[in-house]
Amino acid sequence: MQTLSTEILTRTIRQRPADSYKGTYGRITLIGGNRNFGGAILMASAAAVYAGAGLVTTITDPSNQGSLHARLPEAMFADFNDLAQTQDLVKGTDVIVIGPGLGTSPQSLTILNNVFSVVQPEQTLVIDGSAITLVAQHQLALPQAHLIFTPHQMEWQRLSGIAIAEQTPARNQPVVNQLNATVVLKSHRTQIYTPTAVYENPMGTPAQATGGMGDTLAGMVGGFVAQFTNKTDAVLAAVYSHSAIAEELARTQYVVLPHQIIDVLPQFMKEHECKN
Amino acid sequence: MQTLSTEILTRTIRQRPADSYKGTYGRITLIGGNRNFGGAILMASAAAVYAGAGLVTTITDPSNQGSLHARLPEAMFADFNDLAQTQDLVKGTDVIVIGPGLGTSPQSLTILNNVFSVVQPEQTLVIDGSAITLVAQHQLALPQAHLIFTPHQMEWQRLSGIAIAEQTPARNQPVVNQLNATVVLKSHRTQIYTPTAVYENPMGTPAQATGGMGDTLAGMVGGFVAQFTNKTDAVLAAVYSHSAIAEELARTQYVVLPHQIIDVLPQFMKEHECKN
Amino acid sequence: MQTLSTEILTRTIRQRPADSYKGTYGRITLIGGNRNFGGAILMASAAAVYAGAGLVTTITDPSNQGSLHARLPEAMFADFNDLAQTQDLVKGTDVIVIGPGLGTSPQSLTILNNVFSVVQPEQTLVIDGSAITLVAQHQLALPQAHLIFTPHQMEWQRLSGIAIAEQTPARNQPVVNQLNATVVLKSHRTQIYTPTAVYENPMGTPAQATGGMGDTLAGMVGGFVAQFTNKTDAVLAAVYSHSAIAEELARTQYVVLPHQIIDVLPQFMKEHECKN
Amino acid sequence: MQTLSTEILTRTIRQRPADSYKGTYGRITLIGGNRNFGGAILMASAAAVYAGAGLVTTITDPSNQGSLHARLPEAMFADFNDLAQTQDLVKGTDVIVIGPGLGTSPQSLTILNNVFSVVQPEQTLVIDGSAITLVAQHQLALPQAHLIFTPHQMEWQRLSGIAIAEQTPARNQPVVNQLNATVVLKSHRTQIYTPTAVYENPMGTPAQATGGMGDTLAGMVGGFVAQFTNKTDAVLAAVYSHSAIAEELARTQYVVLPHQIIDVLPQFMKEHECKN
Repeated sequence: MQTLSTEILTRTIRQRPADSYKGTYGRITLIGGNRNFGGAILMASAAAVYAGAGLVTTITDPSNQGSLHARLPEAMFADFNDLAQTQDLVKGTDVIVIGPGLGTSPQSLTILNNVFSVVQPEQTLVIDGSAITLVAQHQLALPQAHLIFTPHQMEWQRLSGIAIAEQTPARNQPVVNQLNATVVLKSHRTQIYTPTAVYENPMGTPAQATGGMGDTLAGMVGGFVAQFTNKTDAVLAAVYSHSAIAEELARTQYVVLPHQIIDVLPQFMKEHECKN
Repeated sequence: MQTLSTEILTRTIRQRPADSYKGTYGRITLIGGNRNFGGAILMASAAAVYAGAGLVTTITDPSNQGSLHARLPEAMFADFNDLAQTQDLVKGTDVIVIGPGLGTSPQSLTILNNVFSVVQPEQTLVIDGSAITLVAQHQLALPQAHLIFTPHQMEWQRLSGIAIAEQTPARNQPVVNQLNATVVLKSHRTQIYTPTAVYENPMGTPAQATGGMGDTLAGMVGGFVAQFTNKTDAVLAAVYSHSAIAEELARTQYVVLPHQIIDVLPQFMKEHECKN
Repeated sequence: MQTLSTEILTRTIRQRPADSYKGTYGRITLIGGNRNFGGAILMASAAAVYAGAGLVTTITDPSNQGSLHARLPEAMFADFNDLAQTQDLVKGTDVIVIGPGLGTSPQSLTILNNVFSVVQPEQTLVIDGSAITLVAQHQLALPQAHLIFTPHQMEWQRLSGIAIAEQTPARNQPVVNQLNATVVLKSHRTQIYTPTAVYENPMGTPAQATGGMGDTLAGMVGGFVAQFTNKTDAVLAAVYSHSAIAEELARTQYVVLPHQIIDVLPQFMKEHECKN
Repeated sequence: MQTLSTEILTRTIRQRPADSYKGTYGRITLIGGNRNFGGAILMASAAAVYAGAGLVTTITDPSNQGSLHARLPEAMFADFNDLAQTQDLVKGTDVIVIGPGLGTSPQSLTILNNVFSVVQPEQTLVIDGSAITLVAQHQLALPQAHLIFTPHQMEWQRLSGIAIAEQTPARNQPVVNQLNATVVLKSHRTQIYTPTAVYENPMGTPAQATGGMGDTLAGMVGGFVAQFTNKTDAVLAAVYSHSAIAEELARTQYVVLPHQIIDVLPQFMKEHECKN
């Protein structure tokens, strides 16, 4: 097991090439936020925008349109009940993040299946939150794609069948291999599994233990993967950045709110970009 | 009568244990905010989030969904007219705050009775604002629970039957005992009654005399009680913090807005957490 | 004609008495903001809250409820089409501000007449913007109350019948006397008329020449009048503060946005409150 | 080809005359923002307000009303489906910006045609984003007016018929002459064409390569043209300011969000206004 350090940042966060445009930094589509959990997809979307993704579309319950644009005019909006439009948007994207605030209702399942039905092998698909639960509950076939899962321990138990107390690398690795995915297993010390290696994030603070942190991380993972060539490094850098920013803020705050991590992300990435 | 000091903060605001997660800091559900008074439940909810509560759900009029998430994506939303969903959410929570902006209409009463019908003895129930008025007006039976009331003097008159001019500790204490509750009696110098003691808050500034202050305090009380083991100390620390922050801001402001207190709460709590 | 100076501030902005509560600082109701001009009543309401008014209610088009609370949770909301509720709210208030973004449609006129029908002599009524135009167009009888008009020059022409080029103190004063009102005649150098005196505001900057400035001033006038005993001084202090803050901000800004004036109002008032 | 420098700013951004009012700084109407792309017209509108335009009206999908006022109370709102009201508003304005987030649906085309049908020769018409695509797709006749186009390279290809790789000054100029317009051709190094000259903007940073930058520039162009007499210089100064601010912010940020450029625009313009 390798322990992450700031080296993952300078290795991953390249200086932006002078002659680049929005498309250079990826198109990302985030799907989630039912009527009850709209804030989740707002935070995930903001994390993707502030990470530097080129073009961000949020596909969510129509009741979230106004609050999305009040907080984040940079994101485009679509109604997740419009299955045809969702398919078109998903097809034209590089990275898909599905799950933050999606819920586990029949409607949620319909939306998830609709997205899965059009994902293409060259796309990256980040499966988070209730989308993981739905995959596990309904034993959904996963689409061919670069798969990234971001479960907390209970969601990983649902997906892998491994009880929380038994989630060791030895037990986790075979399931990861079978999924042929990157798995960000969130806990006090988050571990990142790929089919060939395991990494541990040494950063993190109990000041982060508050609702919305996972949604924010999912959006950051999407934003990093959309921009940086090495997808594993991109995931690792996103996880490390998320916790490192929280630690920094926690020096002067008893609790760190997810939106505060998002707000300082552009500064943090600049400080840690590759210098040559 | 004991006078509060910063000692209540360092005694109460523990350093967060390294190995903790959202559940460690409590699930809190806030119910209120009709169509006219939506801002009240928004402020109460934000106070709970910024105090560090682990998971916050706001159950309110559906017209408040958008403004809630525009201000506070960290909170989850539910429609307070959906009585079954409200019951489910209340059952799964550690702390319930009911009253900020709830109103006193028949609809408000229905919602209050619905919540009271499912509260369990191990839960903490903070009864604020119009919920206090409804309890008094309709002589509602109180559920078995850790009860906290946060009345201003007129609401206390309604609940206790003691006229404002006669609200002395000697007169108040028997009613508090009968309620078997903690009572935060808000005034120029707020007093906190428990069945065994009375405390006075020496802090507070006339710059606080503006709409929404009580809603904010109710949310802070909920957020502190959700996190800290000694519930009486948690209430005392919330009351003291609320006024101490206001005094600090009032050095440079003629009026202190409730949302400004909320914004600096994470810093204030960090400064005053237990250092060992 | 007397020229205002900072002396009007220290004379008017009293130190808040220690033993005071929300009611001490007045109840103020602001009516306006149709579907097109919602921002106007939002700015007026925010100005009243940030000036320190005790309790602020905004009566506006229902489509403005969400944006009101997203910006200003401290204000209460009511639907201006609910004439009975509007009457109840207006009756229970100390100060009424009507006009910002009200529009001049038949609906606007109905709302204005509804408010005028319940205003009481001891109340202060600030008539601004399109409400002035409606009074002039329909030659409405004014209610018995402490009347304050805040017209720009064109609105004053409509109300007084005096063409802009001829709006001299000599011509204006008889109309002011007939109205038995305070008139804030907004221009490059705003003049304030009472039945007994004329004042000129020496402050102001072309950086203020942007939409929403008048709405903000109307709200500040309402907020000052709600708090300070001498109503003429309160109006003068509001006008002076509005321009003085703008001048300060204009040192580093090419244009000063109304909401920026509102944001710094609590600091400005603290700096200029009476020191003994 | 002339290369722009800060000289264009000090030449263009005049000190505001002391005796001026809102009308001095222009009425501007921005039309766009369908249900999916509401953020685009919010950013364009905010850019116009923060640039100092006197009066700003946003004509957009009604679902964007709340988020518009939550972010920007200074702007007035109208429903772009109300064709008669839109015509009235367009007629009474100095500058029209059409296109940000307008979309290319039949509804979008109806709205565009409706606006084109009432534009007058003395007005300035900024055609941006999907409005350019609609003009090209439907070969729309352009109204007589001071025309400004703000295409990116693909939109210019659609409008001019010149493939991106062949968009040289020699090829572009004849089309510009035929359009009798100013063309802001956005790319890594934006070029500005008038019938008599070509300018190149030396500023710009890859940190700007994110959604919403073009919408923001369109709003700034509108705001500058509304205020400054020499329309060509106004366009040049807007383009230069947009990139210069981004470069400044990019010193400490990995990505620069459009709304951040807007926020600092009043300070930037003050620093660079004509000093005599």
